[in-house]
Amino acid sequence: MLEQLKREVYEANMQLPEYGLVTFTWGNVSGIDREKGLFVIKPSGVAYDRLKPEDMVVMDLEGHKVEGGYRPSSDTDTHVVLYNCFADIGGVVHTHSSWAACWAQAGRDIPCYGTTHADYIYGSVPCVRNLTREEIEEAYERNTGVLIADEFELRDLDHNATPAVLCKNHGPFTWGKDASEAVHHAVVLEEVARMAARCEAINPGVKPAPRELQDKHYYRKHGADAYYGQKQ
Amino acid sequence: MLEQLKREVYEANMQLPEYGLVTFTWGNVSGIDREKGLFVIKPSGVAYDRLKPEDMVVMDLEGHKVEGGYRPSSDTDTHVVLYNCFADIGGVVHTHSSWAACWAQAGRDIPCYGTTHADYIYGSVPCVRNLTREEIEEAYERNTGVLIADEFELRDLDHNATPAVLCKNHGPFTWGKDASEAVHHAVVLEEVARMAARCEAINPGVKPAPRELQDKHYYRKHGADAYYGQKQ
Amino acid sequence: MLEQLKREVYEANMQLPEYGLVTFTWGNVSGIDREKGLFVIKPSGVAYDRLKPEDMVVMDLEGHKVEGGYRPSSDTDTHVVLYNCFADIGGVVHTHSSWAACWAQAGRDIPCYGTTHADYIYGSVPCVRNLTREEIEEAYERNTGVLIADEFELRDLDHNATPAVLCKNHGPFTWGKDASEAVHHAVVLEEVARMAARCEAINPGVKPAPRELQDKHYYRKHGADAYYGQKQ
Amino acid sequence: MLEQLKREVYEANMQLPEYGLVTFTWGNVSGIDREKGLFVIKPSGVAYDRLKPEDMVVMDLEGHKVEGGYRPSSDTDTHVVLYNCFADIGGVVHTHSSWAACWAQAGRDIPCYGTTHADYIYGSVPCVRNLTREEIEEAYERNTGVLIADEFELRDLDHNATPAVLCKNHGPFTWGKDASEAVHHAVVLEEVARMAARCEAINPGVKPAPRELQDKHYYRKHGADAYYGQKQ
Repeated sequence: MLEQLKREVYEANMQLPEYGLVTFTWGNVSGIDREKGLFVIKPSGVAYDRLKPEDMVVMDLEGHKVEGGYRPSSDTDTHVVLYNCFADIGGVVHTHSSWAACWAQAGRDIPCYGTTHADYIYGSVPCVRNLTREEIEEAYERNTGVLIADEFELRDLDHNATPAVLCKNHGPFTWGKDASEAVHHAVVLEEVARMAARCEAINPGVKPAPRELQDKHYYRKHGADAYYGQKQ
Repeated sequence: MLEQLKREVYEANMQLPEYGLVTFTWGNVSGIDREKGLFVIKPSGVAYDRLKPEDMVVMDLEGHKVEGGYRPSSDTDTHVVLYNCFADIGGVVHTHSSWAACWAQAGRDIPCYGTTHADYIYGSVPCVRNLTREEIEEAYERNTGVLIADEFELRDLDHNATPAVLCKNHGPFTWGKDASEAVHHAVVLEEVARMAARCEAINPGVKPAPRELQDKHYYRKHGADAYYGQKQ
Repeated sequence: MLEQLKREVYEANMQLPEYGLVTFTWGNVSGIDREKGLFVIKPSGVAYDRLKPEDMVVMDLEGHKVEGGYRPSSDTDTHVVLYNCFADIGGVVHTHSSWAACWAQAGRDIPCYGTTHADYIYGSVPCVRNLTREEIEEAYERNTGVLIADEFELRDLDHNATPAVLCKNHGPFTWGKDASEAVHHAVVLEEVARMAARCEAINPGVKPAPRELQDKHYYRKHGADAYYGQKQ
Repeated sequence: MLEQLKREVYEANMQLPEYGLVTFTWGNVSGIDREKGLFVIKPSGVAYDRLKPEDMVVMDLEGHKVEGGYRPSSDTDTHVVLYNCFADIGGVVHTHSSWAACWAQAGRDIPCYGTTHADYIYGSVPCVRNLTREEIEEAYERNTGVLIADEFELRDLDHNATPAVLCKNHGPFTWGKDASEAVHHAVVLEEVARMAARCEAINPGVKPAPRELQDKHYYRKHGADAYYGQKQ
């Protein structure tokens, strides 16, 4: 079942090592079929060089396995919550990509210092707080998703304009209209994280890019008046 | 038309990922035929691994498309202004190359700390100010070019001796006698930016290289008394 | 003799350059056959691209060569002590991997700043003191092992939960249930060292990850209640 | 003439891009035949991917070209002085390798922070002062060599134990018993420079490795009592 989606999700997973975003098995990508209400995700702890499209695990939106010979990624319950709370996203990525994870460990939002960031992500990349001991013990992976969704509501963020988040002392999640775009955002986030850290070292008093420049770059790529790329 | 130039510009564009200067489609190279008053540029948002020489777009110096099935790079109007203001350059490159973009985000000129820099770029690499809201809204890409040209005039810089600039909170532009040399300068700039940042971390009180050393290295590679390389 | 173990240890050694952990010959891996009380180790100063499985040297647990045409690694006596003191480990790795060696040179324990670390290593990675002049002159390599074992006892550390150590002004040792897992831990340590350094630069006041988060990640991968990966 | 030496020097030159020590043509290696009093060096400004063994230029120890269709490296006169002053060396390398050049730009000696450094280089890597305007104008490349030799005498350094130097605001020179060992030392220097910079960032108060540890590592690889590697 869902053979086409399994192939897409498999290919999106394979892009993680290709883009240098994962060491060993430290990452997972999922993609959803919204009509069927089912999503497909990487199995837990299987090496990328042995992964096959048919190894992908099919899950429903209550977190039950529907098909698959393997256990799904241990982070699956976070994906479940994100699909439920962000009702129009089509793909989710979790990695420990090095620079993004450094910001997560540092416990800081990534400020928007330039157009590379503004081209894809509107405003700062938020870093959510640690889960409490109770939240961890109750349901660590699910509560990670709940915390992300709550934080986006609290800060009044549009998850389509800010398709990335950092979990404190852990690492990033990104999402997009499908698995491939979610990976694209994971690559952008890693580069943005790298550049923000180095930029602060070069100028410790650096300020975020002016709002009008951020707007210009975001909206020349997104929305009705976008003019970047080719008409489709 | 301009088949030879298209091939040259195509090859110069393909050097950007080869030298690690671009992620995804974040860069563009153009080259000009000064006799015909036409230049050739990468199409907007087309992936490098699908790019073909015949995809290059032909533009005139008023910014009108003369030939091509694709939209030109969204930064085309900046190239137009640079070709008009710097009347003897033959190629222009824009990238978000990581270290140069960090200095642009930091909003600082790159001081000349050594001979790697002085071999190619005379004095600091200037970082121009942000455009105002009005300049952005009126004509963002064109005014980026105007600001660069104005800054070079204001600082009394020779654009052939300083073939690189940083746009604040954005990234670098470089140029040269043709598209290939403009890419060469983009590679040099990225390495110079990397080394300047690390050098300041190693010695926070570091001073620029003495003027006589900068002169020696610049002029052993450029001008009538140059003796680097082979006679041609 | 020990042909299968030689091949395993050879392959584990070859993973060091593959994972970018060694320059030239700056690293060595060994693996032990506990029933026979013999271990197999890389010969000293032989280039990785000329290494063959049959070049591996067989040693006993008193540090005598049992078989092999080459001299064993100059660090062999450290391996001997680690196998004797940590009676259930099956493989040992020593490298000068760049980031881990930086922390060793800096003389600092690596704090646990996040889940990438906590997934594999429980608590800080300890950095042991310098050997005294007397300890160096008496038996440098052996006393390096003795110092590591003493430090683990002094700090009451479980060597299976903390499978890595830094030797001050030198570099890391890691171990595991076999040679391959010891290399796996060497890769983890290098990434953890890189991220900890960058994380401190991004937030100089950063604190270690909360204990409950460290516990959660460590125990979802280790022990009776682990649920990461596939059942075996 | 000197066909075997030309091949060795050619191969040593080709190792510079292989080990990531050069961008474009920013490096050169030479090797000497002490009996004939002639050395062989890379031609100036020729791209590595077009270099051939027969392109190597033969020079005498007064700096005159003896054979070759190309001009020799613009840094040839520095090599001449080093061969004359350090009478037992067999090869010389100059690069702008990124981290070593950062320390040169920073104008600092590289302290010996650990055994990776001590295994090859006894004590700090010295950074020599800038040449004066007069020294530059009189004979830049020759005076660079003279300054290096003078500095080694002034500091009472053994050039065989310290086979590397930094020229302020410029970059490193290394040497060895032949061209291949000189490249080996250039690789070591780059790694040592990288680790020293990062080590200082991790611990700003870091001190050099204790003398007895430096001695131990240097002398287990060098001199009559060396026991690293295989007997030859």
